[in-house]
Amino acid sequence: MSRRVKLTVAYDGTDYCGWQIQPNGITVEEVLNKKISKLTGEDIRIIGASRTDSGVHALGNVAVFDTESSIPPERMAYALNQKLPDDIVIRQSYQVPDDWHPRYQDHVVKTYEYHICNAPVPNPLKRRYSTHVSFPMDVEAMKKGAAYLIGEHDFVSFCNIKTNVEDTVRTVYALDIMQEGEDITLRITGNGFLYNMVRIIAGTLIRVGRGFYEPERVKEILDEKVRTAAGVTAPPNGLVLVEIGYDDSENGGYSEEERR
Amino acid sequence: MSRRVKLTVAYDGTDYCGWQIQPNGITVEEVLNKKISKLTGEDIRIIGASRTDSGVHALGNVAVFDTESSIPPERMAYALNQKLPDDIVIRQSYQVPDDWHPRYQDHVVKTYEYHICNAPVPNPLKRRYSTHVSFPMDVEAMKKGAAYLIGEHDFVSFCNIKTNVEDTVRTVYALDIMQEGEDITLRITGNGFLYNMVRIIAGTLIRVGRGFYEPERVKEILDEKVRTAAGVTAPPNGLVLVEIGYDDSENGGYSEEERR
Repeated sequence: MSRRVKLTVAYDGTDYCGWQIQPNGITVEEVLNKKISKLTGEDIRIIGASRTDSGVHALGNVAVFDTESSIPPERMAYALNQKLPDDIVIRQSYQVPDDWHPRYQDHVVKTYEYHICNAPVPNPLKRRYSTHVSFPMDVEAMKKGAAYLIGEHDFVSFCNIKTNVEDTVRTVYALDIMQEGEDITLRITGNGFLYNMVRIIAGTLIRVGRGFYEPERVKEILDEKVRTAAGVTAPPNGLVLVEIGYDDSENGGYSEEERR
Repeated sequence: MSRRVKLTVAYDGTDYCGWQIQPNGITVEEVLNKKISKLTGEDIRIIGASRTDSGVHALGNVAVFDTESSIPPERMAYALNQKLPDDIVIRQSYQVPDDWHPRYQDHVVKTYEYHICNAPVPNPLKRRYSTHVSFPMDVEAMKKGAAYLIGEHDFVSFCNIKTNVEDTVRTVYALDIMQEGEDITLRITGNGFLYNMVRIIAGTLIRVGRGFYEPERVKEILDEKVRTAAGVTAPPNGLVLVEIGYDDSENGGYSEEERR
C-alpha cells in the first residue's frame, strides 16, 4: 500500500547548486532522491515545495514522496539522517493524505530570513551564512523602507525578469528588521514569494541602510512596477528559507504548528 | 628600519590542522607566513599567542612579526585581507614595541566560547561552529557545576596529559552559561588555559547538563587532581578563541580595549 510522506528538510546550501535537479552540479533534490531510494529500495522522485537557488540555505523546506516501504513515516527522518551528508538534515517526517501537494495548497505561509554581518572587517565564522557589509548601516531607515512592503502589492519590481509567473501580486504579512551587535536580520513572512524576491528586497533595503536610497524610495520602486527600479539582488548565502506553514487544520490537522 | 607589527587574527578552523606549522596538513600559521612574506617581500615567521588545535576557530588570536616594509602597520590588515583566503581575516594591525611578545606578558586575559546546539535533530547551519547534543540539557545544573571552576585552582584534572606545562594552576575569572533557543554558549575568561582545558570543561559540563554528573561532581573532579576524573574532551568545532586582552597600559597604551 502506497502512502505519501512529508519531509521537513534543512540544509546548508553552500556546496549545492540549489534544490532542483540540473545537469551541472549536485543539488539537494538529487541527494534526497538517491538516499530515499536507497532506504526504501524504490525509485523515488520527491516533490519539493520551494526550489531554492544555488547557495541558499533552508531550515524548513518541505518535500513529499510516495512509498510502499514498511518503515513508519515518522521514523523516516531518523533513518534518512543516518544516510545523508551532514549538510542535509531531515527535521521531521510524517504521513499526509495521498493527494497532498507541497506547492498547491490554499493557505501557505512562508518565512525567510536574510542575514547581514555589518562590521568593518568580515567575520570568517559568519561568511557562509551572511552577507558582509563593511559600511555603517542605518537600521531605522531600513525599518521605515521595509514598512512600505507590508501588505498586498504587485511585487513585479522585486522579481527576477527570468520568472515565468504571470500573477506578481503577493502579500507580505510581516517584515521585521532586527539588529544584535554586528548581526542584522531581515525576517519576512508572506503567502508566497516571486523568483529572487527576498534577495531583491534585501538588496534594496541594504541600499536604504547604506544611505544610497531614502526609505521612501522603496514605495516608489513598488509603484514603478519594473524590475530595474529596485536594488541589486543580494548574494544567496545570506538567505535562509526558515519555514513553510500550511493551514491544513480542516484537512487532518497535520500543520507544522500543531506538530511542534 | 625594522618594526614589530601586531595582528588580531580571526579564522574558521574547519579546514585547518590548527594554528601551528606541522608536517601533515595546512595550518593558519603557515598561510599567514606565506601571505605576509608575499606582501612584504621578506621571509616572515610570525609568533602566535595561542596555538589553537585542529578545527578550533578564533575571532581574536594574536600574532606579531618584524618587518622593514614601508606599508604602514595599520594598513597591513587591509592589505593582507586582499591576499588571504576568506576563512582567515586580519581584524586589526598596528605597531608594538620591538620586544613585545604575545605569549610573555604579565597581564593577559583570554576569553573562549564553547557552542552547543541542543535540539532533537542537528541544525546543518550550525554544524561547523557547534557541538550537537540531541538530549535535553539542564542548564541550571550546568551553571551550578560551572561555579566550582571560577577562581584560582589547580586545573590538572582539566588538562590533556600530553601537556608539557609544569604549573597547572590557573585563574578563571568568569564562566557564564547562556541559553537562547537551541543555542547554549559557555563563555570562559581566565588568565590562561591549559592544553584542551576549555574543551574538557565543556565536555564535563555537558555531562552535568545531561544528568550523568551531579553539579557537585565538578568540585570533586577539581579536588582529585587527575585527568581521568573529568569528562571527555568536547569536539573542537564548538570552540572559539574570542579574545586575548593585554593590559599594556603602562607600556605604551596599545591594549585591545583602547583601540576599539
